[in-house]
Amino acid sequence: MEIMQVMGRLVCTQRVEGLGHMHLRILRNNKGKQLVAVDPVGAREGNWVFTASGSAARFACPEPSTQTDLTIGGIIDFWTPDG
Amino acid sequence: MEIMQVMGRLVCTQRVEGLGHMHLRILRNNKGKQLVAVDPVGAREGNWVFTASGSAARFACPEPSTQTDLTIGGIIDFWTPDG
Amino acid sequence: MEIMQVMGRLVCTQRVEGLGHMHLRILRNNKGKQLVAVDPVGAREGNWVFTASGSAARFACPEPSTQTDLTIGGIIDFWTPDG
Amino acid sequence: MEIMQVMGRLVCTQRVEGLGHMHLRILRNNKGKQLVAVDPVGAREGNWVFTASGSAARFACPEPSTQTDLTIGGIIDFWTPDG
Amino acid sequence: MEIMQVMGRLVCTQRVEGLGHMHLRILRNNKGKQLVAVDPVGAREGNWVFTASGSAARFACPEPSTQTDLTIGGIIDFWTPDG
Repeated sequence: MEIMQVMGRLVCTQRVEGLGHMHLRILRNNKGKQLVAVDPVGAREGNWVFTASGSAARFACPEPSTQTDLTIGGIIDFWTPDG
Repeated sequence: MEIMQVMGRLVCTQRVEGLGHMHLRILRNNKGKQLVAVDPVGAREGNWVFTASGSAARFACPEPSTQTDLTIGGIIDFWTPDG
Repeated sequence: MEIMQVMGRLVCTQRVEGLGHMHLRILRNNKGKQLVAVDPVGAREGNWVFTASGSAARFACPEPSTQTDLTIGGIIDFWTPDG
Repeated sequence: MEIMQVMGRLVCTQRVEGLGHMHLRILRNNKGKQLVAVDPVGAREGNWVFTASGSAARFACPEPSTQTDLTIGGIIDFWTPDG
Repeated sequence: MEIMQVMGRLVCTQRVEGLGHMHLRILRNNKGKQLVAVDPVGAREGNWVFTASGSAARFACPEPSTQTDLTIGGIIDFWTPDG
């Protein structure tokens, strides 16, 4: 799993049905790249989280058929970023 | 999921049967690399979209056996690219 | 899916059974890296093709149990490479 | 599989149910990037380990539904890092 | 699939059960990075091989439940490395 920081929400009216009403978050990885993840744990802007990718991302959702390849797995209690 | 911009269509007469009649789009990621994605949401040139990869890409299609590893998951209402 | 160019065939006498008699091609990606792909569409040297990776690579073969992680999905009619 | 070194534990009170009570370790890969992995073998700080990613990461856990994309597969008896 | 060269064996007494008694090899990819792969074909040090990753890596083993994400798929008869 990778460690990323929550940057904000993603507003996206028109999307595939398989994402249901899951919340989408914009995360930033350690290279500064912005990614989109499904959030089943209720993370807030600024939180450090770890994410599961691949098929694990789907299984980490309440509904395993959620069409995601990146899902927040937990909020990290304490974290000092690299560098 | 990753955020990319739609560059255009991909013309490809000779292809595997498992892609059916799905539309193929050329996308550009944040590094400028061009990728090919299946488009079930009707994105247009210039749109910012987010994409699902891996097995989620197949499940994001109306037909889950579609032989894709990258599928557009939604059109982003508003987006400011990095940099 | 990614866009690559066919460089040639791969000669490989000793290989796992699960690849059957599928043709193997050497492809070059946009960074110049050489990769090996299964070819179910009959691509020729110099052709621009797009490739499916992951589980989609197996499903893109006539026999879904083919042990590949990269399969040619189609030959592109026209393509201007990056750069 | 990749070779990484164990840096420490990850403290994470709020996480998805599918990780159960599995221990989480912070690993460092050969580029210095820190990653989070599930540890079913009891690795200690400083150990060199190899890791399985993707669906293999789930199967490497006692409970295959564990929602991980990176799992320690073994502790390496002897290893000289690159460089 | 990727092309890599066999560097040697990996000695690893303590490992997950799901790898059984499969031989583990250290491979070097085209960037010089060292990776660990399961070897069902009997490759030797110095051999050029191609590898399957992801779920294909498991299916390329005699036992598909082998907990690997990288498996040697064949020994290349002749190969001129890049550069």
